[in-house]
Amino acid sequence: MEIGIGILGGGYMGKAHSVAMAAVGAVFNTPLRPRLEMICASSAESAERYRAAYGFARATADWRELVADPKVQAIVIATPQSTHRAIAQAAFELGKPVLCEKPMGADLADAEAMVAAAEATGTPNMVAYNYIRTPASQYARQLIAEGAIGDVTAFRGEHTEDFLADPNAPATWRTTGMANGTMGDLAPHMINGALALIGPIESLIAEVETVHKTRPGGNVTNDDHAQIMCRFANGVMGHMFFSRIATGRKMGYAYEVTGTKGAIKFDQEDQNVIWLYKMDDPEAERGFRKILTGPAHPDYEPFCQGPGHGTGYQDQIIIEARDFLHAIHSGKPVWPTFRDGLDVARIVHTALRSAQDRSWKDVPSKG
Amino acid sequence: MEIGIGILGGGYMGKAHSVAMAAVGAVFNTPLRPRLEMICASSAESAERYRAAYGFARATADWRELVADPKVQAIVIATPQSTHRAIAQAAFELGKPVLCEKPMGADLADAEAMVAAAEATGTPNMVAYNYIRTPASQYARQLIAEGAIGDVTAFRGEHTEDFLADPNAPATWRTTGMANGTMGDLAPHMINGALALIGPIESLIAEVETVHKTRPGGNVTNDDHAQIMCRFANGVMGHMFFSRIATGRKMGYAYEVTGTKGAIKFDQEDQNVIWLYKMDDPEAERGFRKILTGPAHPDYEPFCQGPGHGTGYQDQIIIEARDFLHAIHSGKPVWPTFRDGLDVARIVHTALRSAQDRSWKDVPSKG
Amino acid sequence: MEIGIGILGGGYMGKAHSVAMAAVGAVFNTPLRPRLEMICASSAESAERYRAAYGFARATADWRELVADPKVQAIVIATPQSTHRAIAQAAFELGKPVLCEKPMGADLADAEAMVAAAEATGTPNMVAYNYIRTPASQYARQLIAEGAIGDVTAFRGEHTEDFLADPNAPATWRTTGMANGTMGDLAPHMINGALALIGPIESLIAEVETVHKTRPGGNVTNDDHAQIMCRFANGVMGHMFFSRIATGRKMGYAYEVTGTKGAIKFDQEDQNVIWLYKMDDPEAERGFRKILTGPAHPDYEPFCQGPGHGTGYQDQIIIEARDFLHAIHSGKPVWPTFRDGLDVARIVHTALRSAQDRSWKDVPSKG
Amino acid sequence: MEIGIGILGGGYMGKAHSVAMAAVGAVFNTPLRPRLEMICASSAESAERYRAAYGFARATADWRELVADPKVQAIVIATPQSTHRAIAQAAFELGKPVLCEKPMGADLADAEAMVAAAEATGTPNMVAYNYIRTPASQYARQLIAEGAIGDVTAFRGEHTEDFLADPNAPATWRTTGMANGTMGDLAPHMINGALALIGPIESLIAEVETVHKTRPGGNVTNDDHAQIMCRFANGVMGHMFFSRIATGRKMGYAYEVTGTKGAIKFDQEDQNVIWLYKMDDPEAERGFRKILTGPAHPDYEPFCQGPGHGTGYQDQIIIEARDFLHAIHSGKPVWPTFRDGLDVARIVHTALRSAQDRSWKDVPSKG
Repeated sequence: MEIGIGILGGGYMGKAHSVAMAAVGAVFNTPLRPRLEMICASSAESAERYRAAYGFARATADWRELVADPKVQAIVIATPQSTHRAIAQAAFELGKPVLCEKPMGADLADAEAMVAAAEATGTPNMVAYNYIRTPASQYARQLIAEGAIGDVTAFRGEHTEDFLADPNAPATWRTTGMANGTMGDLAPHMINGALALIGPIESLIAEVETVHKTRPGGNVTNDDHAQIMCRFANGVMGHMFFSRIATGRKMGYAYEVTGTKGAIKFDQEDQNVIWLYKMDDPEAERGFRKILTGPAHPDYEPFCQGPGHGTGYQDQIIIEARDFLHAIHSGKPVWPTFRDGLDVARIVHTALRSAQDRSWKDVPSKG
Repeated sequence: MEIGIGILGGGYMGKAHSVAMAAVGAVFNTPLRPRLEMICASSAESAERYRAAYGFARATADWRELVADPKVQAIVIATPQSTHRAIAQAAFELGKPVLCEKPMGADLADAEAMVAAAEATGTPNMVAYNYIRTPASQYARQLIAEGAIGDVTAFRGEHTEDFLADPNAPATWRTTGMANGTMGDLAPHMINGALALIGPIESLIAEVETVHKTRPGGNVTNDDHAQIMCRFANGVMGHMFFSRIATGRKMGYAYEVTGTKGAIKFDQEDQNVIWLYKMDDPEAERGFRKILTGPAHPDYEPFCQGPGHGTGYQDQIIIEARDFLHAIHSGKPVWPTFRDGLDVARIVHTALRSAQDRSWKDVPSKG
Repeated sequence: MEIGIGILGGGYMGKAHSVAMAAVGAVFNTPLRPRLEMICASSAESAERYRAAYGFARATADWRELVADPKVQAIVIATPQSTHRAIAQAAFELGKPVLCEKPMGADLADAEAMVAAAEATGTPNMVAYNYIRTPASQYARQLIAEGAIGDVTAFRGEHTEDFLADPNAPATWRTTGMANGTMGDLAPHMINGALALIGPIESLIAEVETVHKTRPGGNVTNDDHAQIMCRFANGVMGHMFFSRIATGRKMGYAYEVTGTKGAIKFDQEDQNVIWLYKMDDPEAERGFRKILTGPAHPDYEPFCQGPGHGTGYQDQIIIEARDFLHAIHSGKPVWPTFRDGLDVARIVHTALRSAQDRSWKDVPSKG
Repeated sequence: MEIGIGILGGGYMGKAHSVAMAAVGAVFNTPLRPRLEMICASSAESAERYRAAYGFARATADWRELVADPKVQAIVIATPQSTHRAIAQAAFELGKPVLCEKPMGADLADAEAMVAAAEATGTPNMVAYNYIRTPASQYARQLIAEGAIGDVTAFRGEHTEDFLADPNAPATWRTTGMANGTMGDLAPHMINGALALIGPIESLIAEVETVHKTRPGGNVTNDDHAQIMCRFANGVMGHMFFSRIATGRKMGYAYEVTGTKGAIKFDQEDQNVIWLYKMDDPEAERGFRKILTGPAHPDYEPFCQGPGHGTGYQDQIIIEARDFLHAIHSGKPVWPTFRDGLDVARIVHTALRSAQDRSWKDVPSKG
């Protein structure tokens, strides 16, 4: 059964979602088969250019037109964060399912409003945290849940890149607006990952810093890097570090999970490997196993029957598309929903508050 | 402009090519946009199953019907090697471009006949050596060609997997027929890579061995592993090892290239990394650089604007589809053509002869 | 010229210092040549056993006898932390140089008293922080000092091991006494390293935790793991993690230093490698260089003329012995002196205070 | 009980053995305790310089004087290969045990004469193959012998360095004389390793090449790199590569052993790690384990009680010294004896012959 897809935004993530929608049916043999119906961009010219490039039927520069179009049956939001809320609300009012890029909105208020709209209308909704969907990270999550490493005692995570490491890199839209800083742009990925791997975060203390306060072309008004010490509800001690100036790091979504019976390490720069240590190996044979993902791991086989052949960035978005289609088709929520995304927004919000008055803060519970 | 694609074979590689044809337009904004027209499999039932799963318009169990169909304008051969020759010849007679899975045919005679047919008709043709198309290996090729590591002095390559490492793995179609053995199935990839990276091979001596001569269910009549010492035309000393019983290796397409000014290392199990050593770094700072592929490397950016985010197995097939479409659209040969594939077949053939009488052999030159 | 060495303690570190004193002359051609004069252990039997094993002339169970012996001209303290202060004070009163194992004493008061004694008598003194003396870490220090990675913006360090990771490992002397916990036993190494690499720490907030509060045989009264967020005097944001329950980690003395022009990574489990990233490499060639230590790096060549041949744990202690002998021979202080060790003790003390009331603390300045 | 040691040669290996003899007693608590009695070098001046530096009692420029000296009770030969035979014969005639650096002599005839002399006199003798004595390689040997990886099916080894990779590096004594080429200088280490790990080699075919035939200052008359395809007596297929021009490789003594139930990988540049793959791990958890050496592995604990703390190059020589002293003390042969070294010499000799007429050769059996 076909489903008409409308995508808002044609840049980095807009393209990724377009390719994913083009490929997901063949990869996963999904019951719902996406039809690239309409794409929206900031100008008629760019919209038409994206339409032709990605293979959509129609283009528009008016997001309301896309949302309202009767042939558009599901929406993917890949526009700047400040626009997410209005688009999502409009879609939900029409009962159209929404897959929204992270972070959910420009701030906590946006996120809360978006959850309210989604839940009031009962429309399928999902936040696009792609990194936690690699076969390796899905497997890590499964290993921890099954107790393969015993009781978790410590967690360390990071999301580090270096696209602004050069102090002479010019000021751009990325260097203004809290949602475009490291806490808004990168931190949500790893926070979402931490919640998925370890569970809810109870309290935290954060530092949030603008290292390079001016850049050619203007002042910088958001953060370059940040760190959080946190305590999970299950008692685990945690630390997370986020940076866009981490020289040498390109896709440093990485974590280490220590347990009483083993440990797990992962680094997105080597996304097809999961490192697993098991204490019950004989002492002389104990070591971190470098496990290459393969058909024995979640969501790998549809991409390739051979282990170690590897999945890539685009494949994560394809897995995400499959999940979004499943949420629509089954009518059942698929993690992470907007409500799950709100948990992330609350932690970001609490971290910003903590950094301001330099003290431990409790994370507000769901409610 | 649309082009109707017919794919023969719906299994491992048939699916990979189907997904690639579904996605390639959106990824590369190709002038020719594939339409999944018809798929052929060994039975009507399986053909229909593949059709539905991958999103083809029609299905058939008769390869001649697919080749002859007027709406099928280009052919991808992903059936067993013994069938390649007849299919390719039929396609070329109708002037239909062919992308053929490696190895080209069941033996050297097949390969020669296929080149003759391609060249007699002047039809676009290409062999599907996907591994040499990763951004990392394309970049390695470019570095060597530009002299970044000086004059090459030594080459070591391998294509090692372990899908038959267990002596108790049962006999199957893979364990009979020379084209299904390691020399037929795996060696061609690395031989093609060696030719691309270093240049023509002049002479060689080989060992080809069936380690496990019987398996549950039958005798094994092809090779488990093999090795070649070779001399390239430019004087470089080389060695290649191929194995399907290399316990622990999953996608061991790996090479090391040593030059007078530097060196390059690559392993497909870590396909997003190329290791580069440069002798002109200051002595204390010399070391292999672990370079993560990114937009600075060939064919990466269409998949992702962020370096280190990584491409995967399926993406190689998408790059291949782009190249095949380009060969059709431009009317110009795109490497590796069937003639290039014949070079590989000649080396495989020479290696088998060398292994039989245990002596150095010259590789017949192009003729 | 010979110098009579007296070593207190014959276990883990006592042996390491004994071997170092036996080998250091031949390795470094030191002007002062150690003579293994006397060893002291907790009983006459064990002292005699160590004497025979390590090759000392004499043995004693009375540390005062060793310190007072006229043929003992320099002292190495490798006994439990609670004994360091009295021994050092006695040695200094006799004008005998002291190399003292870390941490300096049982607490901050000990460390202060020891510095006072050392400085009052003007006797050579040194604290045994061996890990910062590997060729790799010396080189890292040098690179940072020379500005090879520009201005440092972030530091992450850890000292993690897993010798108490198993919750069923029994209670021992290691599980009581603050100086034997992770903050006392492991943290000082990495704190000293951070000070050497980055500079003074201005303020910090810490968490210190006993994860396994009881073990077979008794209650645990010191900490299993701890973490610190800190701010260096030069503005660098830092984080350190210390653990004796870090399952899978054996010698996890590791750090990452991020700068505006490059970055450095090191892990003691791979002690012969330093990873260096330089932003001024051409974009396509940028990557962390895996530099194997060799004669181009500090203190490597005396161990081997061949790069990549590697130094080991014992060699660090030999370098330390060379430095201690140099301090004695030259009469000039060699880093880290007791005063430098006091800086570490102050940070440990501040961290323990911070953990108690869960707030940021300034680290008291030298005074 | 003391034993007077005489060492011939004070350079690279002479120093290593001197340090080893100074330290071995304290490390291993050996029954025989070495006394550095006399050192011999090519001139009286250099001999005296080495004496003072390493701590010997006396020096000489006359090797016969050292061998004949009554206080010299055991001999270590670390002079150029062409001198080994005469020295060893003289020592054996006086019944003095000999530890001889590899390769045993300048050629096969030397090696045979040296074995004859050793066996005729029944004097303890040993060849100094240090690399196979790391805890990691000893453990690899043990794992294979115990069947941990099943039946071995393939072996790949290399000994690669790059000290002559630069074509402009000048001609020296290293670039003349077959025993100083790669086959004489580096290959014996890995051949000895292969024999230890896998067993006797039955037949082989080799290539031996001088890549850079002239260098500033003269012609090069020995080999830069070489390779061997071989067949072990137990049927295993093997390959070895040796190079002194392997740009980027510093201590590339590396091997991969493939078995029916697992596999082992090792690289001397990371000498404290052994990689072990076991097929009987659950499929999803299968991966090469990165095992850090520690007290659970052979000969590690005397250097350090903590796993992962690492041993280095010098420690291998200390282990060797312990073994030599044990051979003397026990009166029992300790592997590798001169006879074991002769096996290596025979393989080198056969490889040189094979390379000349480019054909497979049987390796002469022990006789």
